[in-house]
Amino acid sequence: MTSTALSRAERLSLVSITGACVAILANAFQGDDKPLIVSLALSGLAFCASFALIRWLGPTFIKAGFKGVDMAKHSRKELPECMGAVCAAVYLFAIIVFIPFAFYKDVVAATSGGGNRDVVLQVEHVQQGRFLHRFPHSKLSSYLSAIVSLQTIASLGLADDLFDIRWRHKFFIPAFAAIPLLVVYRVDFGVTSIVVPIQLQPYFGPLFDLGALYYVYMACVAIFSPNSINIMAGINGIEVSQSLVIALLLAANDALYLLTPYPHPATDSHLFSLSFLLPFIAVSLALLYHNWYPSRVFVGDTYCYFAGMVFVVVSILGHFSKTLVLLLLPQIFNFVYSVPQLFGLVPCPRHRLPRFNARTGLLEPSVTPWTPERQPRWRVVGWGLRLLSRLRLLRVAVDGEGRLVETSNFTILNLWLVWRGPLREDRLALEITAAQAVLGLFGLFVRHRLALLVFKEDNWSLL
Amino acid sequence: MTSTALSRAERLSLVSITGACVAILANAFQGDDKPLIVSLALSGLAFCASFALIRWLGPTFIKAGFKGVDMAKHSRKELPECMGAVCAAVYLFAIIVFIPFAFYKDVVAATSGGGNRDVVLQVEHVQQGRFLHRFPHSKLSSYLSAIVSLQTIASLGLADDLFDIRWRHKFFIPAFAAIPLLVVYRVDFGVTSIVVPIQLQPYFGPLFDLGALYYVYMACVAIFSPNSINIMAGINGIEVSQSLVIALLLAANDALYLLTPYPHPATDSHLFSLSFLLPFIAVSLALLYHNWYPSRVFVGDTYCYFAGMVFVVVSILGHFSKTLVLLLLPQIFNFVYSVPQLFGLVPCPRHRLPRFNARTGLLEPSVTPWTPERQPRWRVVGWGLRLLSRLRLLRVAVDGEGRLVETSNFTILNLWLVWRGPLREDRLALEITAAQAVLGLFGLFVRHRLALLVFKEDNWSLL
Repeated sequence: MTSTALSRAERLSLVSITGACVAILANAFQGDDKPLIVSLALSGLAFCASFALIRWLGPTFIKAGFKGVDMAKHSRKELPECMGAVCAAVYLFAIIVFIPFAFYKDVVAATSGGGNRDVVLQVEHVQQGRFLHRFPHSKLSSYLSAIVSLQTIASLGLADDLFDIRWRHKFFIPAFAAIPLLVVYRVDFGVTSIVVPIQLQPYFGPLFDLGALYYVYMACVAIFSPNSINIMAGINGIEVSQSLVIALLLAANDALYLLTPYPHPATDSHLFSLSFLLPFIAVSLALLYHNWYPSRVFVGDTYCYFAGMVFVVVSILGHFSKTLVLLLLPQIFNFVYSVPQLFGLVPCPRHRLPRFNARTGLLEPSVTPWTPERQPRWRVVGWGLRLLSRLRLLRVAVDGEGRLVETSNFTILNLWLVWRGPLREDRLALEITAAQAVLGLFGLFVRHRLALLVFKEDNWSLL
Repeated sequence: MTSTALSRAERLSLVSITGACVAILANAFQGDDKPLIVSLALSGLAFCASFALIRWLGPTFIKAGFKGVDMAKHSRKELPECMGAVCAAVYLFAIIVFIPFAFYKDVVAATSGGGNRDVVLQVEHVQQGRFLHRFPHSKLSSYLSAIVSLQTIASLGLADDLFDIRWRHKFFIPAFAAIPLLVVYRVDFGVTSIVVPIQLQPYFGPLFDLGALYYVYMACVAIFSPNSINIMAGINGIEVSQSLVIALLLAANDALYLLTPYPHPATDSHLFSLSFLLPFIAVSLALLYHNWYPSRVFVGDTYCYFAGMVFVVVSILGHFSKTLVLLLLPQIFNFVYSVPQLFGLVPCPRHRLPRFNARTGLLEPSVTPWTPERQPRWRVVGWGLRLLSRLRLLRVAVDGEGRLVETSNFTILNLWLVWRGPLREDRLALEITAAQAVLGLFGLFVRHRLALLVFKEDNWSLL
């Protein structure tokens, strides 16, 4: 049986991390608190809390019906499912507690009357924000709208885990969750212009206002990011490890802006983004520890949606949603590659996760079987499948008369196994994660170096 | 079997309400939209949506394990539980969609740069707010923090319904949910002064700053209100009907301020409060229709917490938390009356709801049995029980030797049955609701008329 007790070493580590973080926080109450330090300390606490809660709450979750069987293991015992909900709850708590550290008005306006705003104070805060001090107070409603969106996605993810919402319905769950974000973006911010590439500037001018289309674009990013994390799933640890890589790369990108020696106009946005990413990285690490091969817990759709929405929130409020798209390249590939099955051109079984070979203990590509009677409806689909097979993008088995017998399922995990041969589950997760990291680093390089070819200057340097 | 289909009449009514509300909303997009009209239309839609969803989702909820048996009926069939979660979800959706109508910047600032605020615009909005136009933009973060608090209580309520959290833990659930509200109140508003009664003004001055104590006070209100709704439960419809009475009285109190012929400083706060109360009244009516005797669905702790938190949110952000306390008088009585059982002076069974007499079909006071061996531990408790019995505040049965045989349970519902004799379930709910309404109206009268004795002037008149 899986024990729910923390080991001695775990307990010691958690207690010492907690102690250190509490000390930092206590210090931050006095004097000149930098939000980044506070955010780090809160993230440490969030890590400890989610680590312990994930361990302790396992039996409670199983009793409440959140449980599943690991299909790629010899023992088929029940594991707690939907543990991402614990992470989401701890994360949200940390983010809410962070508000006074980030936005606290140090000079209380002399008047005690109804919420008068001292405008001079605000401007002063804007300046401080650039120097890694507190955020400008005007960002509070953006921050709150982010929390509302994240709470919404967590609730909807939980509803999905509870009620097993149908695929075609749940695809739009993130769109609902993005509504608070977009509504507040509209009311409070409303910037819908994009920088035009140099080559097109003679026609459109330096800035082009997309208007309502910009909201459509943001809604698309908001729908895509959580769903793309959710469909790149099926083996131990992969949901969390890919999310961690993306979060770390986004954080690294933010750090680039903070390390510039001069105050940069975008510093503020990136500080803001970091304060959402650090606690996310913390709770994800705690989850990964329990979800990595061999899993003790499952993450649930809640985690996948939540992770995707964290990326949406930071990239929209930080105004770097195009950078996010670069970091989601493997997910985009996985989605495009899945299209034949998602849209029914090729039959789509209930589960497409790689097949566990109980004899070797390795994972092999799972397949969709074709019978002689049930061949592709349109001939072009058959041609397409054979073309993909030629390009080594699919494993296709045909019988003596050229009829399809089976094709590997259209997911990046199966494709990787087609390329690399049978792999153990953790090896597969590690390789996919490494590929994600390499591609993401390349994406960031493209974004900061090659962008100079189409834009006047990278916004990393001083505008 | 309970059918999940809407009847013809229901369908017709819902469709016509929906049509009318959509027409109002479409109209509101053009021209000079008043938030109150929009809020009414959105409430109409929220009523229709929650009415239909409560009906349709019954089997889904039962399948997911949200089910219970009505203990006060002859047939003991399973009914869907936790339907308040549907109301909470629809409510939150309506409240989020309302944001652009309430806060929309009609004049987009000329600069497209990062969120610059045109201060002149803000002040103009403040003026409009007083004349039932849009809210001042500076209220956006208060509004959002209210949403965050309400989402938190909905999630925690759901967690309680899922995991059956122990009583001494769940008592503090509302405190967690109030954190966002209090944090943003501190950061964004920070008024902690109260008006001092005339008699004390020579000593304290006209305003007295409670400082941190004011937050403690708000936290107490936030903990008390949801819990007090939650413990005044147990018979069909009572949770929803008492919440509806409180909401309607709060709305009536708000309306008093809006009907003044001149712009009043508190108009804004009360308009704000109404925009949270109207959709709540709407979803509660839809729920009451299904939860009234004989219940087709149960509301769950989610609804009770959520309702209590709606009252907390409007009264704290509207600065009339003392008025809320007046309206909660029956709940306060019920809580104080329950104290002997809640704190273990008198044994507390798992359920204290009135006992169903299957022969008569009526409800009777439920009792706690005492055996000759198990008498009150302290003699003072025995005396207290006999005193309560003398005051007709408890039904006590003693044997020939003066030992306690049984005492009625300490809830207002049982006490009412002690006073009035056995009643049918709906009759009891109706009488308690009526008592709540009468007491509440009296409370409002006290607040607006008698307050003049201790304060210089009622804030209903021009300050």
